[in-house]
Amino acid sequence: MSPIDTRLKSLDVVLPDVMPPVVDGYVSAFAPFVRSGDHIYLSGRLGKEDGKLLCGKVGDEIILDRAKLAARSVAIELLAVLKVAVGDLDRVRRIVKLLVMVNGAPHFTEPHKVADGASEFLVQVFGERGIHARSSCCVAQLPFGVCVEADMIAEVAPIAQK
Amino acid sequence: MSPIDTRLKSLDVVLPDVMPPVVDGYVSAFAPFVRSGDHIYLSGRLGKEDGKLLCGKVGDEIILDRAKLAARSVAIELLAVLKVAVGDLDRVRRIVKLLVMVNGAPHFTEPHKVADGASEFLVQVFGERGIHARSSCCVAQLPFGVCVEADMIAEVAPIAQK
Amino acid sequence: MSPIDTRLKSLDVVLPDVMPPVVDGYVSAFAPFVRSGDHIYLSGRLGKEDGKLLCGKVGDEIILDRAKLAARSVAIELLAVLKVAVGDLDRVRRIVKLLVMVNGAPHFTEPHKVADGASEFLVQVFGERGIHARSSCCVAQLPFGVCVEADMIAEVAPIAQK
Repeated sequence: MSPIDTRLKSLDVVLPDVMPPVVDGYVSAFAPFVRSGDHIYLSGRLGKEDGKLLCGKVGDEIILDRAKLAARSVAIELLAVLKVAVGDLDRVRRIVKLLVMVNGAPHFTEPHKVADGASEFLVQVFGERGIHARSSCCVAQLPFGVCVEADMIAEVAPIAQK
Repeated sequence: MSPIDTRLKSLDVVLPDVMPPVVDGYVSAFAPFVRSGDHIYLSGRLGKEDGKLLCGKVGDEIILDRAKLAARSVAIELLAVLKVAVGDLDRVRRIVKLLVMVNGAPHFTEPHKVADGASEFLVQVFGERGIHARSSCCVAQLPFGVCVEADMIAEVAPIAQK
Repeated sequence: MSPIDTRLKSLDVVLPDVMPPVVDGYVSAFAPFVRSGDHIYLSGRLGKEDGKLLCGKVGDEIILDRAKLAARSVAIELLAVLKVAVGDLDRVRRIVKLLVMVNGAPHFTEPHKVADGASEFLVQVFGERGIHARSSCCVAQLPFGVCVEADMIAEVAPIAQK
């Protein structure tokens, strides 16, 4: 078991199946990820609770703590995609950037606290390599009315030259 | 005629003039694109219909199908900028990432379907190289009240060494 | 004094202290910046007036000119972070990309004019190297209810090989 897999196990995290059979990450009109050089660009993933999309406005139907856990579920899915992209999460050199979009009620001004649910998880898993740049905001709506979405850029080990 | 130009012609797509006389892509206080290494970063472009900005809230004044076509027009403009950036669209190695921002009515929860208008077009034109990572959301407003905006990152062939 | 420091002085701009004592840029659950290759990814910074967060809806409590100055303050903070990242702002090769998120009133459709406050400042400081790609939009809310947030990608000189 690789160090990161061991860490995930110690956190009781099981990476979900995030994709149908895949050709170069293709699904629908876009892909869960694209590799470009030593960077993986990951598509936005949607917040879940008990494996189902968690929909509603944060600060209204959805309280902060639930939204924060949904943001954590987004980070877990992003890692699942990243694992498909590089095979072994120990090949991740750095989580580079996160954009966290929160579906907030009109007066909810704490998207950064929701985003912490994803950020703290990434640091738990990767340690220093998990410390990333981040922006967070509240948007007007998200796909399916979900409460939080985030996308990510990660730097990974170069593909070995043959 | 290059393969991509031929494909565009077969789709009856004419790339618009997107820029005034240009110094290093400069226009206004920012540029339509910046090249950094082998990546082109493209500024957000705004959705149009019949060559004019299509303004209004998607899910209210603007129905989904119209917004999707406006998103397609954004992708066409992005390609026009990309052509200025690299001279020949066959030098595009990969459409890497799209961020699609939809000016949705409060209860419109299908920004991803609007975004498909851009995504599907890119795959039509570039095939596998057009499959990209993507995030989409509904924002509160966009420049001029336009219905959709998107920006893009593309990977292109290295500049030949002399 | 380096050329960029001289330029900042001529503009009467003093870069603020943006960070507590830093380990690899770490603060809270995320970092003000991450270096990846020759790029610095900067976290979103929040608009200020007289050194304090400027909160409220642009086009309502906050008029455009004030928001534009707040966007300029964001650009100043981004430069302060960038200076921590690379030591000397003359090592900045290019401001690559800006994402400007404006906390606008429902009918405010000029996020691009707010964003110009940041963009124009960057060009004043860096000249051609400051011309960047950009997207701007109005979001539903921002951290602490601040009126504007922006993040940035910059290309910097390679780290000298030893």
